[in-house]
Amino acid sequence: MKNLLVMKFGGTSMGTAERIKSAAALCEDAHSHRPTVVVVSAMSKVTDMLLETLRHAEGGDERGVDANLAALDHKHRDCCADLLPDLPARNATQALLDSILLEFSRIARGVLMLGERPPRSVDEAIAVGERLSSTLIAAYMKSRGVEAFAVNARDLVVTDAVFGNASPLMDQTREKAVNQLKPALEQRKLPVITGFNGATMDGRATTLGRGGSDFSASILASVLDASELWIWSDVDGIMSADPRLVPNAKVLDEITYREAAELAYNGAKVLHPRTLVPLMEKDIPVWSKNSFNLTAPGTRIVPETREGPIGPRAVTSMTNVALVTLDPASALLSGTKIMARSLEALAAANAEVLALTSSSYRQNFCFLIRTAELPAVIERLEATFSIELTHGYLNPIDVELDVGLLAIVGEGMKGHPGLAGRIFTAISREMVNIIAIAQGSSELTIGIVVRKDGIEKAVRAVHAECGLGN
Amino acid sequence: MKNLLVMKFGGTSMGTAERIKSAAALCEDAHSHRPTVVVVSAMSKVTDMLLETLRHAEGGDERGVDANLAALDHKHRDCCADLLPDLPARNATQALLDSILLEFSRIARGVLMLGERPPRSVDEAIAVGERLSSTLIAAYMKSRGVEAFAVNARDLVVTDAVFGNASPLMDQTREKAVNQLKPALEQRKLPVITGFNGATMDGRATTLGRGGSDFSASILASVLDASELWIWSDVDGIMSADPRLVPNAKVLDEITYREAAELAYNGAKVLHPRTLVPLMEKDIPVWSKNSFNLTAPGTRIVPETREGPIGPRAVTSMTNVALVTLDPASALLSGTKIMARSLEALAAANAEVLALTSSSYRQNFCFLIRTAELPAVIERLEATFSIELTHGYLNPIDVELDVGLLAIVGEGMKGHPGLAGRIFTAISREMVNIIAIAQGSSELTIGIVVRKDGIEKAVRAVHAECGLGN
Amino acid sequence: MKNLLVMKFGGTSMGTAERIKSAAALCEDAHSHRPTVVVVSAMSKVTDMLLETLRHAEGGDERGVDANLAALDHKHRDCCADLLPDLPARNATQALLDSILLEFSRIARGVLMLGERPPRSVDEAIAVGERLSSTLIAAYMKSRGVEAFAVNARDLVVTDAVFGNASPLMDQTREKAVNQLKPALEQRKLPVITGFNGATMDGRATTLGRGGSDFSASILASVLDASELWIWSDVDGIMSADPRLVPNAKVLDEITYREAAELAYNGAKVLHPRTLVPLMEKDIPVWSKNSFNLTAPGTRIVPETREGPIGPRAVTSMTNVALVTLDPASALLSGTKIMARSLEALAAANAEVLALTSSSYRQNFCFLIRTAELPAVIERLEATFSIELTHGYLNPIDVELDVGLLAIVGEGMKGHPGLAGRIFTAISREMVNIIAIAQGSSELTIGIVVRKDGIEKAVRAVHAECGLGN
Amino acid sequence: MKNLLVMKFGGTSMGTAERIKSAAALCEDAHSHRPTVVVVSAMSKVTDMLLETLRHAEGGDERGVDANLAALDHKHRDCCADLLPDLPARNATQALLDSILLEFSRIARGVLMLGERPPRSVDEAIAVGERLSSTLIAAYMKSRGVEAFAVNARDLVVTDAVFGNASPLMDQTREKAVNQLKPALEQRKLPVITGFNGATMDGRATTLGRGGSDFSASILASVLDASELWIWSDVDGIMSADPRLVPNAKVLDEITYREAAELAYNGAKVLHPRTLVPLMEKDIPVWSKNSFNLTAPGTRIVPETREGPIGPRAVTSMTNVALVTLDPASALLSGTKIMARSLEALAAANAEVLALTSSSYRQNFCFLIRTAELPAVIERLEATFSIELTHGYLNPIDVELDVGLLAIVGEGMKGHPGLAGRIFTAISREMVNIIAIAQGSSELTIGIVVRKDGIEKAVRAVHAECGLGN
Repeated sequence: MKNLLVMKFGGTSMGTAERIKSAAALCEDAHSHRPTVVVVSAMSKVTDMLLETLRHAEGGDERGVDANLAALDHKHRDCCADLLPDLPARNATQALLDSILLEFSRIARGVLMLGERPPRSVDEAIAVGERLSSTLIAAYMKSRGVEAFAVNARDLVVTDAVFGNASPLMDQTREKAVNQLKPALEQRKLPVITGFNGATMDGRATTLGRGGSDFSASILASVLDASELWIWSDVDGIMSADPRLVPNAKVLDEITYREAAELAYNGAKVLHPRTLVPLMEKDIPVWSKNSFNLTAPGTRIVPETREGPIGPRAVTSMTNVALVTLDPASALLSGTKIMARSLEALAAANAEVLALTSSSYRQNFCFLIRTAELPAVIERLEATFSIELTHGYLNPIDVELDVGLLAIVGEGMKGHPGLAGRIFTAISREMVNIIAIAQGSSELTIGIVVRKDGIEKAVRAVHAECGLGN
Repeated sequence: MKNLLVMKFGGTSMGTAERIKSAAALCEDAHSHRPTVVVVSAMSKVTDMLLETLRHAEGGDERGVDANLAALDHKHRDCCADLLPDLPARNATQALLDSILLEFSRIARGVLMLGERPPRSVDEAIAVGERLSSTLIAAYMKSRGVEAFAVNARDLVVTDAVFGNASPLMDQTREKAVNQLKPALEQRKLPVITGFNGATMDGRATTLGRGGSDFSASILASVLDASELWIWSDVDGIMSADPRLVPNAKVLDEITYREAAELAYNGAKVLHPRTLVPLMEKDIPVWSKNSFNLTAPGTRIVPETREGPIGPRAVTSMTNVALVTLDPASALLSGTKIMARSLEALAAANAEVLALTSSSYRQNFCFLIRTAELPAVIERLEATFSIELTHGYLNPIDVELDVGLLAIVGEGMKGHPGLAGRIFTAISREMVNIIAIAQGSSELTIGIVVRKDGIEKAVRAVHAECGLGN
Repeated sequence: MKNLLVMKFGGTSMGTAERIKSAAALCEDAHSHRPTVVVVSAMSKVTDMLLETLRHAEGGDERGVDANLAALDHKHRDCCADLLPDLPARNATQALLDSILLEFSRIARGVLMLGERPPRSVDEAIAVGERLSSTLIAAYMKSRGVEAFAVNARDLVVTDAVFGNASPLMDQTREKAVNQLKPALEQRKLPVITGFNGATMDGRATTLGRGGSDFSASILASVLDASELWIWSDVDGIMSADPRLVPNAKVLDEITYREAAELAYNGAKVLHPRTLVPLMEKDIPVWSKNSFNLTAPGTRIVPETREGPIGPRAVTSMTNVALVTLDPASALLSGTKIMARSLEALAAANAEVLALTSSSYRQNFCFLIRTAELPAVIERLEATFSIELTHGYLNPIDVELDVGLLAIVGEGMKGHPGLAGRIFTAISREMVNIIAIAQGSSELTIGIVVRKDGIEKAVRAVHAECGLGN
Repeated sequence: MKNLLVMKFGGTSMGTAERIKSAAALCEDAHSHRPTVVVVSAMSKVTDMLLETLRHAEGGDERGVDANLAALDHKHRDCCADLLPDLPARNATQALLDSILLEFSRIARGVLMLGERPPRSVDEAIAVGERLSSTLIAAYMKSRGVEAFAVNARDLVVTDAVFGNASPLMDQTREKAVNQLKPALEQRKLPVITGFNGATMDGRATTLGRGGSDFSASILASVLDASELWIWSDVDGIMSADPRLVPNAKVLDEITYREAAELAYNGAKVLHPRTLVPLMEKDIPVWSKNSFNLTAPGTRIVPETREGPIGPRAVTSMTNVALVTLDPASALLSGTKIMARSLEALAAANAEVLALTSSSYRQNFCFLIRTAELPAVIERLEATFSIELTHGYLNPIDVELDVGLLAIVGEGMKGHPGLAGRIFTAISREMVNIIAIAQGSSELTIGIVVRKDGIEKAVRAVHAECGLGN
C-alpha cells in the first residue's frame, strides 16, 4: 500500500490511560496524513501478571490466582473509566474487556485443576493482554471520532505450531492480512492489531515469543508493503551501550540492519533479533522512537547509514550464557569429526552457537550458548557421544557458567588497525581476564568471553575506549 | 631398556665428513657410558636431490637424471674417502654405497619411462638418503673400533600404507624393534638406524613424511622405553621466534610438551608435530641440541618446566595458509548444520582446521587450513554443497590466500590479564590489520590471522612486546 | 526373591465382580504356595472410558464428561457392593474409590476449561483405572482374610519423562521396588500393584503406553528376580493367527522369546513388544494363560522350545501401515546417500522401520512404517530434503496407505526350502498381489506387503498352507 | 547430425583379419548410405595380454614381459600382413603399429623397474589395444578406397581423473567431439575411434573401465546426436538367460532401457550398466547385433517395446557377491541410526548396494554388495564403528561369501499376481534354499539371494517356470 505507515507501541507506551491517550494522539496524527496500521503490546506488566497467574494456578495457589484476576480486572477497568468518561461507550467497552478476561479466567482455572501449564493454553492465555489493550485504545479513538477498530492478530498472522515461539508463514499471512485489512484501509479506517500473537493454519492460538510485538509489526509491515515502521518505546532509541551499565551511553542517530541484528543477537534488548529479517528483504526503514519524549529524534535503522561504515558503534553484553568444552581424550578420535557431530547435536537441539573456537593441537573446542538452551544441548551431546563418554574416548563435557559475552559492533571496523589492541588493553586495565575471543570474517563484530564478574567493568572500559559516549 | 639414550642427527649434523666425525664422536662418547641407539637423517641436501632427480625423471629429462645421479655418487664417494682412509674398509663400504645408489637409479629410470612418479616408488627411493648416511657413519665408527652397525628402519618401523605420510603401528613396531635391537644392545653394540622410513606389515616401503627422522627417533625411544631422546641439529635449541624474522630471538631453556606441540602445530620448524605423542605417553624428556655448538645447553622438552607456567614463551607464524568462508545466502539453511556438514567434508578431506570462527548473526563462518590441503577441501565442499551452491542457497565459497597465521604460545597465559591487549596494540602499532582471532579454551595459544605482508612485522612486534628476546 | 511368582491380570480378567473373585482365587492359591506379586489392569473398558471422557472434555462437551463420570462411578460402586457385602468394609473401600475418582474428575474439568488435553495430565488421569481396580481386588482379598494391599506403581516404577510412552529406568526401579516390596513379601503379604503407570525420578506421573500392564509386570518380575511371570487374559494363549481372521487358528504350546517378539513387532496383540526385553535378560519364563478357562494349559514363552526350531509357527498382520517411496530424479544424487539421510530422518522422527527394500538400478527405495508415525516422518523427510524436493532432484515423496503387512514367524524356517514358494503360491491363488517382500538374514520372519483389501485372504491362505491350524 | 549411425565392434568382432574384413564390410555398407562413426575394441584377448604383461613387469618377470611383447607384435604384424597384401601400405601401417607398441614397451619396462603398476600408467598402457585395432581396420578400409581414418579417443572423450574407472564430462566431450569429427563427417569421411579410453581436461590418459567400449560408443552417440547405435558382438542379442546356464535361452526381440539397465545391473554381461544413461536422455535406440550372424535380427533396446509391459523377460545371476550383516548387540543403539551410518560408509566406499533388507525386531540388517567392493566396505564399516565393535555394542560384522544373486526382470510384472509364488515354488522344487528376497516398489525386478551352489539350478528353474525359453 502506498505510503503505508506501521506504528508499534510497546508496553510502557500503553502503560496508563495517560500513555494510551498520548499513543492515540500519535496514531490520529499519522492517520490524518497517511494510511496507518497500529500494533500494540499489552499494558506494561500485564503480560507478567498473566504469566504469574498461570504459575500460581500450576502450583495450586487458588488464592494467588484470584488476587491476580482481580488486579487485572481493576487495572483495565480503571483505565477504561479514565479513557471513556461517557457511560454508554464505557459500558460497551467494559463488556468486551469482561468477556476477554473471562476467557483468561477459564484457562487459569483449568491450569489450577490440572496442576500443569500446557504450552498451547499458555499461548492462548497471554495473548489476552494485547487483546485488552487494543480494545481500550481502539475504543478511545472511536470515542474521539476516529474510525479505529481492534483486530486480534490471530485472524491475520499465520504461524507454524511451535507454541511459545512460533514463526510466521509469510505467504499465508500476506493473504490473510491483505484480505482483512486492505478494504478497511481503503475506507480510511485505522486497524489496531494485537502484537505478539497469531494462529496456526488450523486456528490454534500461538505466540511469537516474548518481545514479539516488534516482530508482529515487522511481519505486518512486510506483508502490507509498508513504507516505514515506527517502533515506539520508552527509550530515546538504540544506544551505544546499556545505560544502566554505562551512564554516558548515547543514542545513535542511525545504524544499519546488520548492526542492529548483531546488537540484538549479542544481547541488546531494543529489537527482537528476528524482527529485522522481513524488513531487510524489502528495505523498509525502521524508526526506534520514544513515546515519552516526542522531541527526541530516535534511531533510524536503514540498509546503509549516511555516515557510512565508521567502526565501533555500540557495545552489548550477555551474562546468561554457558561455555561448553569438548575434549577428545584419545588420538583415535578425529577432532574435526567430533566437532561436526557436536554441531549436528546443537542443530538438533535447536540451539544457537553464539561463539565457537577450536584449539589446534589438542583438537578440543568450545562454544558459547545461551544458558536456557544448555540442558537440551547437554542432553543431545550426551546422547550423541554416550559410548565415547562411557569408555573415556572423550573427557567429561565441561560447562562453564561463570562467563559473560561482550560484543563490540560496527560496520567498517576492519578499517581500524589499532582497534583490537585498544579494546583488549582497555579490558585488561580493569584486570578482567579474557577467556576466549571470536572475531568472524565479517569484521562487523568482535565477541569476547570474560568472567561474569568482570563484564560490567569491561563494557564500561570498551565503551570509553571507543569514544562511544556523549 | 634401562638408561637407554636415543640420539638423532639431522641432515646438517651429517652434512660433511667432518660433521659425521663430530657426530660419531658424540655417539661414541654416549655409547661408552650407556646403551645408545642412533637415528640419522640423510646428508644435508641429499633428500632434496633425490626428489629433484625423480622430478627430472617424471618430466622426461634424462640428462638431468644422469647429472643428479653423478652428483649423488660423488658426494657420498668423497665423503667415504674422507672418512675411511684405509683402502680395504673404504672399498667394502663404497661397494655398499654403490649397490644402494643402483637401487635408486633403477627407480629413477622406471619413473623416466612411465613419465609418472607413483608414491610408493617415491617412498622407496628417498629412503636411499638415510641408507647411505647410516652406512657411512656406521663404517666410520667401526673403523675406529666401535661395534656400530647400520640398520634399515624398514626392518624395524611398521607403518600403515599411507605412502608419503605413513603412521606407525606401535605394537607391531615394538615387537620388531625389541626383537632386532635388544640382543645387539645387550652385547654392547651400537645400532645406527635410518630415519624417516619404515614399511607396512607386508613389507612395502613407506616414509613418515618430511622431517620424519625426528618421528623415527621418538617412535624408537618409545618402543624401546628409552630414558632420554637427544635431537641434534644445527640450532642451539627451540627459540622464542624464527631468528630470520626476529634477530634477538633467544633459545629457550625448557618448554613443556604441550608448548612444543602448539609451536610445531602453528608453524615452528624445530620438531615435527607428531614427534611428541609417543614421548608424552611415557614422559620421556627430549633435548634439542646443537651438534655445531656443543657448549650450548640446548632446550629441554618436559612434562612440566621448573619455572612453571610463566605465560608467553614463543611466537610462530605460518604463511602457507588459506582462509575459507562459507556464507549461507538463505535463511532456510541452518548455519549450524552447514557448519556441521562442512566439518564432515574437512574430515573426509583429511584436512586439519588450524583456526575456526563463526559470526553469530549471519551464520557464516570461516576456517583456516594449510594451502596444500586447499584443493582437496574445496573439492569436498563443492561436492557436499553442490545443490546449495547451484541454486544460490550458499554464496560461492570464498578463499583468501593473502593471509598468515601468527601464534603466541605459552602455558599460564591466562594469568596475564593485560596480555591480549598488549599483543593487539603491538600489532596495530605496526599498522597491521587483524582479520580474525582465535583463542581456544586452553588459553595456551592465541592465534591471529593477519594479511600476509604484515606477518613479519607483527611477529617482531609481538616478540618485543612480550619481552621474549635477549 | 526365591521362587517368586509375578501374576498379571488383564482388563477382561478384572472385568466384573465375578471375574475379580476368580482372579482373587488364583492369587490366593498362588500366595498360599509361594511369594506372589500381583499386577492388575483397569476393569475392562475403563481405560477407554477415561480417555473418552478426556476427549469429551477437550471438545467442550461438558454433558458427555458428566455422563462418563457417572458411568465410571456406577461401574465401580456396583462392583464394590458385589465384592464386599459387609457394610463397614464396603464403605471404607468406597471412600477410597470416591477419592480416586475425584482426582480424575478434577483433571477432566481442567481439560474442559483449557480445551486441551496435555500429555502429562492424561497420564495422571488414565492411571486412575488401575488404581480403582487394584483397590477393589485388594479390599476383596482382605475381606477374605488375605493380607493383600494395593500399591500405586507410581511409587515403584521409575521412568523417563516421555509422557504417554515412558521407558523404565531399571536400576532406580529396582531400588524402589525392592525397598518397598521386600519387607512386605517377607511378612507373607500380597501386594496388588497398578499396571501401566509409573513416575519420573522427580515424581511426575507417567504411563508406559497402552497394553503397558504387561510391561509393568515384566519390569517388576525382572527387578524382583522372579522365577516366573504368568499373564492372565481372556484367550487361551498365543495363537497361530488372529482367530477373528482365521477360524481354525490354534493355541501354541510353546514359543521362543524371539518368536514372541517378532509376532508382537509385526502386529500380534498378545504381548507388548517391549515386555520381553527385561525377561530375556534374566531368562524368566512367561506363561500366557486364560483366566476364563483354567483348564487350558496356555502358552509358555521360553528361551528355547522343547520341540526346537520347527519352522512357521504363526501368521500376523498389520493394516495401519504406510509404504513410503523415495525416488531420486537426478543421477547427481547418490541413492545410497539419500537412503542414509532418510534413515537419519526416520531415527530423528523416532519411527520404526517395519520393512525396507531398495531397487538397485533406479536407486529408489521404499520403507514401511506405522501410519501413526507417518506425519512426523513426512515432516522430517521434507525438512531434510527440502532443497532437493524444491528443485526436482528428488521426485515428490510417495505414500501408499492402501497396504498391509503380513508376517510369517518361526524359528528354523531356513530349513524349509520350499516354504517361500508355497507361501507366495498360496497368496497368489487368492488373487492377492504382492507389493514388496522383505526377508532378513535372520530367517525368523518373512514380511510381505500386499494391498489392504487382500490381507485377510492372504493371512487365511498362508495359515492353511503352512498347516498351522487345528 | 541427421541420420548419424554409430557402430561399435567388440573384441571378437575384431578378433582376426577375417573378422576385421567382415566388420569393415559392415562399416563400408553403412557409410555408403548414411554418415557413420565407428568405435572399436581391441582385438580379442589383447587387453588381457596387455594387463598380463604389466603384471609380469610388476612382479619382476622380465622374460614374461619379453614373451608377451613378442606375442603382441606377432599378432598384429600377422593381421596387418593379411589385411594389406600391398607392401607400401603394409609397411606404412606396420610402422604405425610399431611405434604404438614401442610406447607400451616403454611403460612395461618402467613398471619392471619400479616393481609397481601405477594406475595412470596402466590406463595409458591398455588403451594401446584399441589404438592398434583402429589403426588396422582404418588402414584396411583406406586400402579399399574408403576415406577412413583412425582417431584416438584421448582427443575426443574428456573424463574425470578416476584412473581405471573414469566418468565422461559430457559438455567438454561434446565440444571436442563435434569440433574434431563434424568437418570430417561433412566431407563424407569415416572416423574409426578407439573405444574404452579418454583423457582428463589436462590431457592425462584415462580409461572408462573394462567393457567400456560400449560406453565410448554411447557417449559419442549422445554428444553427436546420433539417430541409432548398433553394438556388434558375437551373440545374437540380449538373451532371456545366460545360454551357458540355460540351453534353451532365447534372444529377445526388444527390451526397454529400464529392463536392459536392470539386467546389466544384476549381472547380465551384454551391456555395461552406464552405457544406457546417455542414450536414455536422448531416446536413441540401440541394436545389439551379431557380426558373426548377419541374418539374426538382434535385440532392439527402446524406451517402450511394441509388445508393451508383458511381465518377466529375462533371468540373470551374479555370484561374485557378498552378504554383509550388521547386528547391534545392545538395545542402547538405534538400529535405524546404525543403518544410516552404515549406508554413509557404503557411500564413502563408493560401493553399490545390490539388495538391502532389515529385520524388524532385532534391528539387524543385511545388504548385498559386489565381492570386489567388499574390502573397501569392510574397512569403512570398521572405521565407522570401531568403538562400537571394540566395546561389543555391535556384534562382529558378518560376511557371507557363499551366496549368489538371481534376478527376474521385466516391465509389468505387477500384473501377474501368481508370479512370486510360482518363482519361489520353482526354486524350492530344486531344493535350493532362499536366503533373502528383495522386491522394490518398482516391481520391475525381483532379487533373490540363494546359496552359491544352487544358483544355476535356480536360474534354470525360474527360466522354465516363466516360459522364457524357446
